[in-house]
Amino acid sequence: MKTKGDQQLVRRINRSVLLRLVRAQPGLSRARLAAESGLTKSTVGLLVRELLDEGWLGEAGAPVTDGLGRPSTPLQINVGVRALIGVEINIGIVRVVCVSLQGDVLHADAAQLHDHAPAAVCAQVARRVAAAHRALLASGLRLAGIGVGLPGTVHDATGVVRFAPNLGWRDVNLLPGLTEALAAEGVPEVALQLQNDADAAVLGEFEFAGGEGEDPLIFVSCDVGVGAGIVLNDRLFTGAQGMAGEIGHTVLQVDGPRCSCGRRGCAEAFISSRALEQAGGDTRHAAGYLGVLLQNLWMTFEPRAIVVGGKSCETHPALLGGAIETVRRYAASAGLAPPEIRPPRHGAWTPAVGAAAMVLHEYLRPLGSGTKPG
Amino acid sequence: MKTKGDQQLVRRINRSVLLRLVRAQPGLSRARLAAESGLTKSTVGLLVRELLDEGWLGEAGAPVTDGLGRPSTPLQINVGVRALIGVEINIGIVRVVCVSLQGDVLHADAAQLHDHAPAAVCAQVARRVAAAHRALLASGLRLAGIGVGLPGTVHDATGVVRFAPNLGWRDVNLLPGLTEALAAEGVPEVALQLQNDADAAVLGEFEFAGGEGEDPLIFVSCDVGVGAGIVLNDRLFTGAQGMAGEIGHTVLQVDGPRCSCGRRGCAEAFISSRALEQAGGDTRHAAGYLGVLLQNLWMTFEPRAIVVGGKSCETHPALLGGAIETVRRYAASAGLAPPEIRPPRHGAWTPAVGAAAMVLHEYLRPLGSGTKPG
Repeated sequence: MKTKGDQQLVRRINRSVLLRLVRAQPGLSRARLAAESGLTKSTVGLLVRELLDEGWLGEAGAPVTDGLGRPSTPLQINVGVRALIGVEINIGIVRVVCVSLQGDVLHADAAQLHDHAPAAVCAQVARRVAAAHRALLASGLRLAGIGVGLPGTVHDATGVVRFAPNLGWRDVNLLPGLTEALAAEGVPEVALQLQNDADAAVLGEFEFAGGEGEDPLIFVSCDVGVGAGIVLNDRLFTGAQGMAGEIGHTVLQVDGPRCSCGRRGCAEAFISSRALEQAGGDTRHAAGYLGVLLQNLWMTFEPRAIVVGGKSCETHPALLGGAIETVRRYAASAGLAPPEIRPPRHGAWTPAVGAAAMVLHEYLRPLGSGTKPG
Repeated sequence: MKTKGDQQLVRRINRSVLLRLVRAQPGLSRARLAAESGLTKSTVGLLVRELLDEGWLGEAGAPVTDGLGRPSTPLQINVGVRALIGVEINIGIVRVVCVSLQGDVLHADAAQLHDHAPAAVCAQVARRVAAAHRALLASGLRLAGIGVGLPGTVHDATGVVRFAPNLGWRDVNLLPGLTEALAAEGVPEVALQLQNDADAAVLGEFEFAGGEGEDPLIFVSCDVGVGAGIVLNDRLFTGAQGMAGEIGHTVLQVDGPRCSCGRRGCAEAFISSRALEQAGGDTRHAAGYLGVLLQNLWMTFEPRAIVVGGKSCETHPALLGGAIETVRRYAASAGLAPPEIRPPRHGAWTPAVGAAAMVLHEYLRPLGSGTKPG
């Protein structure tokens, strides 16, 4: 009664359900997996066999009795076979990390980026990825996919970089050149994904949190620009064409200072690294406005957490603390408990680690836009 | 290889896929449905038979040849068997509508609401719904479900009304009393759903648009309070616990006027019906701030459209025009095309019509939170 296509989709969904269950509860047996997923024991047995053979899952120690029939072997995510590579392209720098399926950073490498021309960027990224890949191979690991994040808006349907002002790019179709450059460096052909750096960063915080991840979750990036990556309804959210999260251009003061975008009173005009430089390192003014921005995100999304990172937060450690204090004051005025706001787990490496997480996100959430017919 | 539960979910998903395809493309044949859904002809045949028997689908005229084998009968959504009831509970008024599966309003009724005590509200809503149900029966239609919208926040997991300040409610568990009151009035036991009125309103605009609906889509409600209903990633989005969309409490001016919530400079302090009254009917100030709010939603969500309604828009027809003009100026400053902003299709009846759409939304999007294991 099902076509081959139906069966393939059902198989992908079931595999992702099993992987997510084992990730959330390491040590699950096949019997427990069947009980928790609602799948039959025979389906679970077959899919677990596949996932073991492909190196996604591993068996952890000797069989144990868990009250569901005969002793069975505890399962866990296998971090010994497959790994991910994440890349951040930023102003003057390329960061490359190798990350395990659990989010552990196995290898990290940063190199200066002198030439922002797309072809030069592709060549340099490919060289650094090839080096990272050799490090993976030397550790006995296999590459599962490559994610790339950059400070720009990426068109969802085509993967074209619409606008990356700080790289000087507009409508750059990076993927073909990057694929070619990677092949020329001998990197095997694997899943390759491109996304805005804040979108990548939020996926790192979401997918590598252990367990199911906080949903909704917002990542706010404070750098030359100010933007947000947003996870909700179990998926990355990018808007109609990939431009959602442009929170740096929400207006916080009518007729405020002129922003680089041409409007007046945008958040970026108060918080960007340029505004911080102009304040001579005094972060109080910017921290207040960052607090307003976070308060507004809280009211709009009711997120489980807001993670705030980016170069400005590393250069100015007082910035985030001041912003959190502002949000606390707003919350106290309204008689509400303030939301959870915290720095990212991987500091400056957050977008690169998040870029690696993009690969896992696509693998673990196959239902995304695929649920829309037509 | 599949359990009964798997099969039921797959069947629900497949039924919803077929219904959505027929809704988007009235006149589809079974052969075309099979081609577009990826399901086998025998699965499509079986499910279409079910959907015809249950009155969701109907056959439209004589068999035609569409180039895919022998002549087949065009299918369409059947508006002659099932209908939905939507209810809006608001300050001093209860609105009840009967709506076809295509969103046509078949019956509309408004009654004054003198007593805001939950039991009195349940009794009055049940009486009006019973009257609407009798009108449905007289037209030969069958009730498919009831949706209720109200101006408050509804806790997602429990359906409890957390806070509805204008009704004077806090932590009111309305559904048990409403179910009982409906039964006492002889209304058949059908799906019954409760949601915030702006959330209901956005679902009316989304599900009754013809075709697949715009995604992301935002509904902004301007009344005593200012809030938003949000559809994205193919579903209603309500935040961690149902409190997302509280855009009336995003801050648009640091140290601005005191808001009813206790904070300063919230959107509501500039735009609420109270602020409009204080301005003596001059909407220019409020329209400017509503424009800022819309500009901020545009940057945050990159929606396909923003629909703006609520009592203030009906009382002050100049409000929305002024706000759109403000957004246009922001867009022009940034060299961007402005987003689509428009009034709702059903004016004052929008939340009631949207409440009816909630029932359909749950039926047509069965994957919602069900994709999360555990």
